[in-house]
Amino acid sequence: MSVVSPPRCVRWHDDAVTTTYAALPNKLAEAANGISYAYRDTGGDGDPLVLLQHFRGNLDNWDPALVDALAAGRRVIAFDNAGVGGSTGATPHTVDQMALDALAFLEAMDLGLVDVLGFSIGSFVAQQIALTRPSVVRRLVLASAAPQGAADMHGWVPEVIGAIGKPSTEPDDYLGVFFTPSPSSRTAGRQALGRMYARADDRDAATSWATRQAQYDAVCTWGIPNHRMLERLGVLTMPVFIANGDSDPMILPHYSYLLAGMIPHARLKIYPDAAHGFLFQHHAEFAADVEAFLADK
Amino acid sequence: MSVVSPPRCVRWHDDAVTTTYAALPNKLAEAANGISYAYRDTGGDGDPLVLLQHFRGNLDNWDPALVDALAAGRRVIAFDNAGVGGSTGATPHTVDQMALDALAFLEAMDLGLVDVLGFSIGSFVAQQIALTRPSVVRRLVLASAAPQGAADMHGWVPEVIGAIGKPSTEPDDYLGVFFTPSPSSRTAGRQALGRMYARADDRDAATSWATRQAQYDAVCTWGIPNHRMLERLGVLTMPVFIANGDSDPMILPHYSYLLAGMIPHARLKIYPDAAHGFLFQHHAEFAADVEAFLADK
Repeated sequence: MSVVSPPRCVRWHDDAVTTTYAALPNKLAEAANGISYAYRDTGGDGDPLVLLQHFRGNLDNWDPALVDALAAGRRVIAFDNAGVGGSTGATPHTVDQMALDALAFLEAMDLGLVDVLGFSIGSFVAQQIALTRPSVVRRLVLASAAPQGAADMHGWVPEVIGAIGKPSTEPDDYLGVFFTPSPSSRTAGRQALGRMYARADDRDAATSWATRQAQYDAVCTWGIPNHRMLERLGVLTMPVFIANGDSDPMILPHYSYLLAGMIPHARLKIYPDAAHGFLFQHHAEFAADVEAFLADK
Repeated sequence: MSVVSPPRCVRWHDDAVTTTYAALPNKLAEAANGISYAYRDTGGDGDPLVLLQHFRGNLDNWDPALVDALAAGRRVIAFDNAGVGGSTGATPHTVDQMALDALAFLEAMDLGLVDVLGFSIGSFVAQQIALTRPSVVRRLVLASAAPQGAADMHGWVPEVIGAIGKPSTEPDDYLGVFFTPSPSSRTAGRQALGRMYARADDRDAATSWATRQAQYDAVCTWGIPNHRMLERLGVLTMPVFIANGDSDPMILPHYSYLLAGMIPHARLKIYPDAAHGFLFQHHAEFAADVEAFLADK
């Protein structure tokens, strides 16, 4: 999304030696499917945590405060899926193919077993990855998520797709979907935007209109009602952490409940006075919850 | 259940004029199906709140502290379904028939539109009432609940049915299922038992072994896995409040999530450090939550 914001210099660690997500270089991974995937890698030990981004988001749309908090205890990798931002190829029109494209990236990086955090459409891809190749997923975090085939979610409501589905979106469009109208949430939203846009050099390539169209086709296809599709969630036997804002207008908390009720071993948390961007608004609390979940605490 | 407890005199209102649930007379309602239903009625204005009791429970197994708190703002009616406690007839072996039996009681009382609070097996009956005759249910409260056909709930785990399914149960059996092992939960459990057994005169008739057998048949039948049965919850379009303890060993909170994800307009609350009897342990908080829900706050 092309969001204009006040650039300002922000560092998230007192220790000046620490590299923040905002300063990580963009890298490219050449995969067997011919795609060059843009990514950023915090480094670190253990099974990496791989991040799957929201609708129209690229590497710059992860709040550095969140990634830095997650990376305090582990290696975190963000990447653009095929056709998105700085990656080559075309964005597919189905979540199934997005999952296969993501698996090609994991293979290209030779990551082995990973933890996966999927956000919004990224949560759809994360579920599909775990269903398609469960052997590579250790634990799964689903943020602002919904299961394929659930009732009454065939595309987003007009106010949402009208705001963040336009050719060029403004900060207020983003804030209206990702944050609630409360002063504290809006302030948190502006701070998150400030952090995302503080990076001046080596920004990621903007996502294209073709990506927007293909991703929204995939969102609507995911929302074609089909009660039987819910049953497949029963095979997701790895631990899953499901999280959402209590006032998300894009993907209602209702669908987090549904995921938590269909997935056998799920932990659920709904964050107060928060919308689609709850994980940026409550970045410290959410990162601590993710860390506790991944560390099995 | 035959639970021996320390009888002591307790009143739940400072105002000595107020009648507490523990002092309400047992009454009988003669229904068109030939059953005489035992019930207690707090009186009061507006649409009444009708309570549906748990496995093997009779009128004495409602914590008076909870009923009194609920009755502060509205009329509350507790009754024994067919074959249970002081009611005549035989306990049926299916939830479907229990719902029809409950509807016969509502008709006998000429209650019209009601709010329904179903607890445990009573929550199964409450769902079935709302599915069978939605026109009589204004709002629905499902406590320690689960939907018919959900996976992995075919009867209760051995520790649970072994404790509360025995011919004669002891207070510790009850406490082990309805309360957590924490000191505060156990203390709350002993206090709840004390309140339930403080009533010395005109106690309800004990539930029979035949009722226990029939109810457990109904519980197991409700738990026969059938994914398609979940879809019917989509027609429950009235507001629904779903509540559970976070550590309920009898009906896991997992199934509260599932209900909240399948019912279109559901409010969900999971109470901390609480088991099957969360609504007795947290009686003041739960009653306030129910009141806010019923008053649409």
